[in-house]
Amino acid sequence: MKINFFMPTRVIMGDDCIFNNRALLKELGKKALIISGKNSARANGSLADMLRALEANGQSYFLYDKVMSNPTVDCIYEAADAIKREGCDFVAALGGGSPMDAAKGAAVLALNTVEKSSLFSTSFTMALPIVAVPTTAGTGSEVTPTGVFTNDAARTKTSVNTPAIFPRYAFLDAKYTLGLSRTITINTAIDAITHAAEGMLSVKASALSDALAKESIAVIAECFDCLIGDQNISPDIREKLLYGSMLAGMVIAHTGTTAVHPMGYTLTYNHNIDHGRANGLIFAEYLKVIEEKEKTSNTTRIPEIVSALGMKSLDEFAGVLDSLLGKKEHFETAELERCAEQASKAKNIANCIFILEKEDLLGIFKKSIG
Amino acid sequence: MKINFFMPTRVIMGDDCIFNNRALLKELGKKALIISGKNSARANGSLADMLRALEANGQSYFLYDKVMSNPTVDCIYEAADAIKREGCDFVAALGGGSPMDAAKGAAVLALNTVEKSSLFSTSFTMALPIVAVPTTAGTGSEVTPTGVFTNDAARTKTSVNTPAIFPRYAFLDAKYTLGLSRTITINTAIDAITHAAEGMLSVKASALSDALAKESIAVIAECFDCLIGDQNISPDIREKLLYGSMLAGMVIAHTGTTAVHPMGYTLTYNHNIDHGRANGLIFAEYLKVIEEKEKTSNTTRIPEIVSALGMKSLDEFAGVLDSLLGKKEHFETAELERCAEQASKAKNIANCIFILEKEDLLGIFKKSIG
Repeated sequence: MKINFFMPTRVIMGDDCIFNNRALLKELGKKALIISGKNSARANGSLADMLRALEANGQSYFLYDKVMSNPTVDCIYEAADAIKREGCDFVAALGGGSPMDAAKGAAVLALNTVEKSSLFSTSFTMALPIVAVPTTAGTGSEVTPTGVFTNDAARTKTSVNTPAIFPRYAFLDAKYTLGLSRTITINTAIDAITHAAEGMLSVKASALSDALAKESIAVIAECFDCLIGDQNISPDIREKLLYGSMLAGMVIAHTGTTAVHPMGYTLTYNHNIDHGRANGLIFAEYLKVIEEKEKTSNTTRIPEIVSALGMKSLDEFAGVLDSLLGKKEHFETAELERCAEQASKAKNIANCIFILEKEDLLGIFKKSIG
Repeated sequence: MKINFFMPTRVIMGDDCIFNNRALLKELGKKALIISGKNSARANGSLADMLRALEANGQSYFLYDKVMSNPTVDCIYEAADAIKREGCDFVAALGGGSPMDAAKGAAVLALNTVEKSSLFSTSFTMALPIVAVPTTAGTGSEVTPTGVFTNDAARTKTSVNTPAIFPRYAFLDAKYTLGLSRTITINTAIDAITHAAEGMLSVKASALSDALAKESIAVIAECFDCLIGDQNISPDIREKLLYGSMLAGMVIAHTGTTAVHPMGYTLTYNHNIDHGRANGLIFAEYLKVIEEKEKTSNTTRIPEIVSALGMKSLDEFAGVLDSLLGKKEHFETAELERCAEQASKAKNIANCIFILEKEDLLGIFKKSIG
């Protein structure tokens, strides 16, 4: 049995948890860079709550609200410049994966001078303290040492990884997710459950990451019925999704992802398909390929995943995913070959207990969206 | 849903994990205080492995090997004096709960000047870095912010609690537990499973601590068959017990214990009954009292615990505990009344979802060992 578990982020979940735990923020310094997208942090109340806490602490702030979806390298350099110019002591991210990842990039660049062209080939050991407030339930970035950025040079998304960017605190208040559309809620939930399942299929999986992954899969899968159709998504379901997503973040913090994510990245990069949806489109066929490979091995990962889902088979799960995703995109084989070619170069591919060749990836693409 | 999860200890488990991760030790300073009991760290190989790692790093050490079972306040002051006298930068504990707890006390006292009479009423925020190498599978102290010491003034055991004494690293190498007697193995396994179950019955339990507790209970309970009777305890079982015990430590780091531990402490303090065995003697009757109280509440903790055990009822578990414990001690009612009186004063009593009165405690004692 091998374990290497490191989760230094303090996770605090509950109503009004930012304000109720403002004493923790106070220790981080005099001035915050608050980092968010254009509108969402204002709309969901997280910005107001963060400002109320900082004000009560007598802390000042600068708001950088220009983070786009799939943040670019230029964006994080601009945010880092703001940190230096404004003399900020820590970074508070309000948002989904994009603002949280951008905060990580900016927190690193605030303390390290590096050319843009060297960003993805440099090892970092220092970053400003980061406070993460997830306002979607998908990325798990609030508990990972990873920031993912649009890498135009490689025509995909590439990550910066260092324990220095584990957020110091993750504040999970599900009320910020109450207004998310059904589509965003579904896409982010699928993203989270792929994190947990890919974590179980990683060569770095341990008994402990598996325990967290199974809890995550079970909690998220319990919400699927409420996400299909048009019934109201209750605050209780919102909390479960946020909890499950955080757990899945803890999983990939240890295991990384496998082939689904690099495959999905190519769809996001080339066709602007939402990240979670992109993963969801290929997820069931990916699991079926693993199931096939497991027939000649002594592993039991797919049955364990299906059991955690509370389902009877991968076909049942594929049906649920179909209901969640609705009408799927379809692409010509030539385009899918390009995507498979791109994805096959990602280092995550080697992270799976079964290494998938480019032909495997193409087969998954074709069966899913061919 | 409320969560406040903080687990800064990096947990590394695997064969030869101290030596293989010696680079982590190197960062901690030039000289270690190694703290252990008289003989066990020599006998089980943990001392040799720690010395090999320190030597490879060019680090020196002083060995304090005078920790007794249920370490006294005098002991931790003596160890702290050794740290100061020898100029040690960090503390490496090799042993069961006693050396690990003593290391925590010494690490605090090395940086804080406090009278013995004020030790348990002082709040601490600083301690030297601690490396914990558990050589039994019971205490979980390798991942808790708690040190428990014999408190003669209160005629029981009392704890020091501060996040500063979360070990920096916990190295779990099950080979150090291979030579433990069946009795010690059983007693420590029972200690661990009470941690997990008491954690589920704590008012501080969260979905995340519950997930860890259920994994712990399931993993430890899977080992019970091998512990009953006289078959060999395999390395695989040893690893499971060490893993389950560590998980249970993560649980109580968040939840604390409830009534079983203070009740057990009185048996340990007054009658020198091993800590895990003391808990085990009263555990089943304690759970039955909670089961009874749950009949008029909307909680389902006992069914969840029984399910995690992989059993059908508390009676089945009580039978397993009887087999594990063998012939039980018995005491006069007057003595049990004294123990119930002592235990009822412990603050952990208020930590349970059902507050047990002194009469409840006495009833548990009488049914268990009356």
